Amino acid sequence: MNIPFYHSSLALLTDLYQLTMAYGYWKLGIHDRHAAFHLSFRRKPFQGSYAIMAGLETLIEFIKNFKYNESDLEYLSSLKNSAGNPLFEGAFLDYLKDLEFTCDLDAVVEGTPIFPYEPLLRVKGPILQAQLLESPLLNLINFQTLIATKASRICQAAYPSEVVEFGLRRAQGPDGSLSGTRASYVGGCHSTSSVIAGKHFGIPVKGTHAHSWIMAFSDEEKAFEAYAKVLPDDCVFLIDTYDTRKGTQRAINVAKKLKNKALGVRLDSGDLAHLSIDVRRMLDAAGLSKMKIMASNELDENIIRDLMQQGAKIDIWGVGTNLITGKDQPALDGVYKLSGITDENGKWIYKLKISEQIIKTTNPGILQIRRYFDENGYLFDMMYDTQLGASENGLIIDPLDQSSRREIKRDIKSLDLLIPIFEKGECIYKSPSLHEMRENTLSELSKFHPAVRRFLHPDPYFVGLENKLYDLKMSLIRDLKNER
Amino acid sequence: MNIPFYHSSLALLTDLYQLTMAYGYWKLGIHDRHAAFHLSFRRKPFQGSYAIMAGLETLIEFIKNFKYNESDLEYLSSLKNSAGNPLFEGAFLDYLKDLEFTCDLDAVVEGTPIFPYEPLLRVKGPILQAQLLESPLLNLINFQTLIATKASRICQAAYPSEVVEFGLRRAQGPDGSLSGTRASYVGGCHSTSSVIAGKHFGIPVKGTHAHSWIMAFSDEEKAFEAYAKVLPDDCVFLIDTYDTRKGTQRAINVAKKLKNKALGVRLDSGDLAHLSIDVRRMLDAAGLSKMKIMASNELDENIIRDLMQQGAKIDIWGVGTNLITGKDQPALDGVYKLSGITDENGKWIYKLKISEQIIKTTNPGILQIRRYFDENGYLFDMMYDTQLGASENGLIIDPLDQSSRREIKRDIKSLDLLIPIFEKGECIYKSPSLHEMRENTLSELSKFHPAVRRFLHPDPYFVGLENKLYDLKMSLIRDLKNER
Repeated sequence: MNIPFYHSSLALLTDLYQLTMAYGYWKLGIHDRHAAFHLSFRRKPFQGSYAIMAGLETLIEFIKNFKYNESDLEYLSSLKNSAGNPLFEGAFLDYLKDLEFTCDLDAVVEGTPIFPYEPLLRVKGPILQAQLLESPLLNLINFQTLIATKASRICQAAYPSEVVEFGLRRAQGPDGSLSGTRASYVGGCHSTSSVIAGKHFGIPVKGTHAHSWIMAFSDEEKAFEAYAKVLPDDCVFLIDTYDTRKGTQRAINVAKKLKNKALGVRLDSGDLAHLSIDVRRMLDAAGLSKMKIMASNELDENIIRDLMQQGAKIDIWGVGTNLITGKDQPALDGVYKLSGITDENGKWIYKLKISEQIIKTTNPGILQIRRYFDENGYLFDMMYDTQLGASENGLIIDPLDQSSRREIKRDIKSLDLLIPIFEKGECIYKSPSLHEMRENTLSELSKFHPAVRRFLHPDPYFVGLENKLYDLKMSLIRDLKNER
Repeated sequence: MNIPFYHSSLALLTDLYQLTMAYGYWKLGIHDRHAAFHLSFRRKPFQGSYAIMAGLETLIEFIKNFKYNESDLEYLSSLKNSAGNPLFEGAFLDYLKDLEFTCDLDAVVEGTPIFPYEPLLRVKGPILQAQLLESPLLNLINFQTLIATKASRICQAAYPSEVVEFGLRRAQGPDGSLSGTRASYVGGCHSTSSVIAGKHFGIPVKGTHAHSWIMAFSDEEKAFEAYAKVLPDDCVFLIDTYDTRKGTQRAINVAKKLKNKALGVRLDSGDLAHLSIDVRRMLDAAGLSKMKIMASNELDENIIRDLMQQGAKIDIWGVGTNLITGKDQPALDGVYKLSGITDENGKWIYKLKISEQIIKTTNPGILQIRRYFDENGYLFDMMYDTQLGASENGLIIDPLDQSSRREIKRDIKSLDLLIPIFEKGECIYKSPSLHEMRENTLSELSKFHPAVRRFLHPDPYFVGLENKLYDLKMSLIRDLKNER
C-alpha cells in the first residue's frame, strides 16, 4: 500500500492522556507489565445487527511506520504542566525516541461481519505501548468499519444493480475521502468517482460530466453533441439540467447518431421512480435499450429499496453524502478496553470496568471469538478466554440474559475469528487485495440468514460467553460491587 | 503551515468527471475561456441560521502544491474508455503535466459568519482549471466549515465555560481528525486532546488519564495516589470508573495531600447535572473549591444548554463525537456552480441553473457580498454582480420573496466579504494565525443580534440581491423557461 497520508510517522496522532499515562507508567517503572486490550463496539450500526470490519491494512501501515521523530519529541518537550515546568522529563522523551512496537496484535480480517461486544482487535504487550495505540486504533478502525457497514447495506438494497461511491465532496477532508472510498469498496461498492482512490487502491473509477458542462454551451443538445464528438466512447448524458423529459429526447437525438456507442443517461434530481420509468420507456422506444440509467440524489439504503419496490428502472446508483458520512449514525461507538494486566510475577490479573448497566460492563480476559456453522451457514458466536480455553461440548451464555444459552454439539464446525497480525511487534500477516476483501464481505454476509441482515429490527444473531468466561465475569462483578 | 497530509500534490483528489470535462474542453479548444464559479450552501447548518467559514488556509496550501506528478499521469494514461482505448490522449496528459494555476480566487476569510446562498468562494479563470478545482474545494471547505459552525454553537452553549475538543477517535481518519480539530478551534473551542493538532497548529492540548489507568491498579485510591506521585502538577482525576461519589471521596483524599495542586476531577458518565452538583458540594466542603469539574459523555449544544439551565457545576466541557462528526447534520451541502462564461470574444455570458423550485435556482454573475452595519452591529447582506455594480442608495430584494426588501440609506456603512486570495494564480493573501481566526469568529458573531444566533428557529438574517442583479436573474429565468 502506497497512499499519500501515511508515509511519515503519525506517532502524535493520539490523545494527550495516552502520553501522560504512558509517562506515569514509565515513572512508576510498570511500563513493561503486559496488558490486554480489546476494541469492540456496543451500538448496532444503523439499527441493523452487524458491522463489516475494515481498516486493518491501514492500521498495519500505521504501526509499521510508528516512530517518534525529532520534531515530535521537540514538540512534546515544549509542553508544560500547571506549574510551568516541562510536562515530560527528558529521559522519558529519550525512551520514546527509541521505542519500538513489540506487542502481539490479533484482528478480525477485513470484510468480516462482526457483532456488538465482539473484539475486532486484541492488543497484548507492554501496557505503555498498548495504551499509546488506543486513539489511533479507534480513529482508523471506527471510521472504516462504519463506512464498510453502510456500503454493505446500500449494496444489498441496490442488488443486483451497481453502486458507485460519490462522496468525495462531502467527506472529512482528503483522507476522509480516500479511506472512506476504500471502506466503501470493501463493503461492496462496485466503483467510485474518486480518481485518487482509483490510483492508490485500484478501485474502478466512473464519471462523465456535470451540469456545468451543459451550462457551458448555448443549449443542452449542443452540449451533448460536443461531448459525443470528443468522448464518443464515454457518453453518459446528464439529462436534468433544465427539464428531464426534454433532456432525454435531446440525449436520444445525439445517442442515435452514435450508433449504439452511448452508454447511458444520468438523473440527479426529481422523483427517480417516475422519471426513470419514463426515461426507460423513451430510450426503449428509440431502440436504445442498451443504454443504462444511472441515478443519484441523496440516496441511502432505505430510499433505494423503496425505489426498487416502486419499479424504478435504475441500473447504476450513485451514492455520496449518506454513504461517506454514515449519515444516520456518523460514528461507530468503538471503544478499547483493558481486560487484563500482569502482576510483578507475570501472572495475569483479569480486569473489567463495571457500570450500573450490565450492558456497559466490559469482558475480562484475553479473548477469542469462535463462530459456529453448519452446511446452511453461520449459527452463533462464542467469546472465550484463551487461557481458560473452551470445552468441546460446553455451554454458551448470553451475558445480558443468562437464561438465553446455546449448547455446543460434538459434530458442529467452527472457526476462530481473531488472526495473528503482529507477533512481538513483527508483522506476520499479508493483507489480501482490496478486491479479495470485497469478495470476502459478499461471501461472508451470504452465510448469515437474511433475517440477520434485515435493515431494521433484524433477527438478533446469538453471541454469548463460554461457560467458564461467563462465571469468571460474574464473579469479578460481584467482587467489584462488594469492594468498590 | 506544515501539516503531514499536504506535502505532496493531491492533484488527483477529484471526481473523474472533472477530468473528462477538462479533456472535453481541451479537445474542443475552449479550455481557456474564462468561467466564474461560486461555492455556496443552501441548507442552514444544524437548523440555525449561519455557518462559520473555515478551511481557507488548507485550501491555499492545496492549490500551491497543485501539480500532476509522473505517477498521477501514468495512472491517468492507464484509464480506458468503453471501447478499450485510452480514455485520455497523450497530448492532453502532456498539457496537464505543464498545467499551472492561473485563476483568480476570492474568498470570505476564516471565522466569518456566512449565510445560505452567499458565495464563500469565487473562482474566475480558464474553465478547465476552475472546473478541476470543484471537487477538492468542496471537500476541503464543506467539512471544515461544518465543524467550525458546530463548534461555535457548542461554545456559545457552554459560555463562559471552556470547551475541549475530544473527537480524535470518532473522526474520519487521521486527517479528518486533524482538520476537524483545526476547524473546532476556529469555531471557538479552547483546546483539544489531539497531540498532533497541538504540534501542527499550536492549539493548546489537554488530558490526564483514562479508566484504564484506574483499572491498572489494585484499587481506585491507589491509582489516584500513583498518578499524583508522578504527575503532581497535572492532576485531573477521573472519578467514575466504579462509583462516582466514592470516586470523588477518594480523589479528595489524594487531593488534600497535594496541597492545592490538584486541578480538578472529570466525569464521563451518569447524569451530569445531579453528579456535578454533588461533586462540587463535596469538593467545596473539603476546602477544594479551586478544583474544577470537567465533564464529557455524548455532549452537544442542546445537552450543554440544558445542563447549564439545570445548574450543572461544570467548568470544562469535553466534546467529541457530536462535534467532530457534526452528528445531526454530518455534511454541509455546499455546491460549486457555474455562473458565467466568456464567449469567443471574451464577453461574459451569465449563466444559471434553473429548477422547478426557485430556491434551487442558482445566481448568475461574478458576485460579491456586501455586509451593512451600524453602531449596533450587522443589519443585512446584499449580493451584487461586480460588473453591474451596486448603487449607493438602491434596493435589495429577497429572491425567494420579492415583496421582502431593504433600502440602502446614504449614511449606512458596509464592507465587502470576498477578499482576493489568488490573483492570476499567484497567492497574494497571508492567512492570519489560527488564534486570530478564532478571535475573528468570536468577535464577528457578537455583532449579530442574539436572535440570529439562536440554535433553533433563529430570526432569519436578511440576505438579498442588489436590484440590477435581481432583474438580471429574473430575466434569465424567463428566457430559460421559454426555450428549455
